[in-house]
Amino acid sequence: MFTIILVESSLELIPTELSNHQSVLAYSKKFKKNISNTLLDNSWHFGAMKGLENEIKRGRPDIVHLTLLSICTSPAFYQNKIQVFVHTINDEIISINNNTRLPKSYHRFQGLMEKLFLTKKIESESEILIQMENSSLSKLISKINPDEIIGLTTQGQKTTFEKLTHQIKENSCILIGGFQKGHFNKETEKIIETSFSIHDSSLEAHLVASRLVYEYEKTIFI
Amino acid sequence: MFTIILVESSLELIPTELSNHQSVLAYSKKFKKNISNTLLDNSWHFGAMKGLENEIKRGRPDIVHLTLLSICTSPAFYQNKIQVFVHTINDEIISINNNTRLPKSYHRFQGLMEKLFLTKKIESESEILIQMENSSLSKLISKINPDEIIGLTTQGQKTTFEKLTHQIKENSCILIGGFQKGHFNKETEKIIETSFSIHDSSLEAHLVASRLVYEYEKTIFI
Repeated sequence: MFTIILVESSLELIPTELSNHQSVLAYSKKFKKNISNTLLDNSWHFGAMKGLENEIKRGRPDIVHLTLLSICTSPAFYQNKIQVFVHTINDEIISINNNTRLPKSYHRFQGLMEKLFLTKKIESESEILIQMENSSLSKLISKINPDEIIGLTTQGQKTTFEKLTHQIKENSCILIGGFQKGHFNKETEKIIETSFSIHDSSLEAHLVASRLVYEYEKTIFI
Repeated sequence: MFTIILVESSLELIPTELSNHQSVLAYSKKFKKNISNTLLDNSWHFGAMKGLENEIKRGRPDIVHLTLLSICTSPAFYQNKIQVFVHTINDEIISINNNTRLPKSYHRFQGLMEKLFLTKKIESESEILIQMENSSLSKLISKINPDEIIGLTTQGQKTTFEKLTHQIKENSCILIGGFQKGHFNKETEKIIETSFSIHDSSLEAHLVASRLVYEYEKTIFI
């Protein structure tokens, strides 16, 4: 089994400092939603986000949704051959049980994530499906204790998904940025042992994840 | 260049016969939307859709969104190496110009599609990006005039994406079902020349599309 971690992911609730901004208030009124428990989303809160610290990496829950779907609808995920975690920009760690079937509909995903921020876990009748805890990427990595820690970034050594999946060790961790633009921050860079670049220009996170999982499946399924 | 067509896709406006159903009225009131120009979406209109003809293939605009994104964010699409069309369950044909950058945010995609149903085209300053016309799959195929017409279905000959992309002719058309469950209808089956199955169980359309495009890229990019 290998592990994919979406790191520094653009998933957070609306920060309190934005709660009085006009675009946030208008959104909350329109959808009758509680501001303090609403995902920050730059397609709605763009006006409020202008000038926000680290703006380019924030408010893109759609990226997390798309990327998780590209992993969690794969045969490898269904058959417990990969595990996936989301590390958020605020150092929460979300663990996703391989029995989880994430909603494809965005508004249901949004509702699920807002519930997760509130209750810290999503349960079915018999088990915990999704869990969130305040932690850090380094703590998660220590817990997984992988054979190697690989980061995918345009700044890494050139390779292909095919070569990469043939050379990774059994218990590897692969880190993919869960944000729109920019590079890993210094803390993440310190954790990564080897960086690879799998395309000249930067690819969307969901594309990276789906190609990675597909090539990995080719090495484990006949 | 080869062509991908999402066929019998679950993309339509709310049919007039459902416009008085409670779940539709509640949705329209909540979001202040005009019922006659709102996408049918089973995550909101499930109650109204019960018993609707061909129910299993309808009201899943999220499937069309996810699948288009998995194609239209690929290097092959950006570099005009593939073209993509959506054939809807009501025989509309949507053409997507390769300069189109589809919104990743679902509510923006929804707005775009609702505008498309209304105006029949989406333009930028200099060109038509997306166009919709009442037509049929067979008319579209006649216009493309492909060297071969391939359908991907669990009922086809077993192959892999790798084998398939190595054997397809330059100007091929590949048909992927743009719906949740079920098989191609008889009309589509008549059009398909060869059917292939690329997995034992049925895979989500977005997964099929992204794997297909990726393997195709490997045959054209070094």
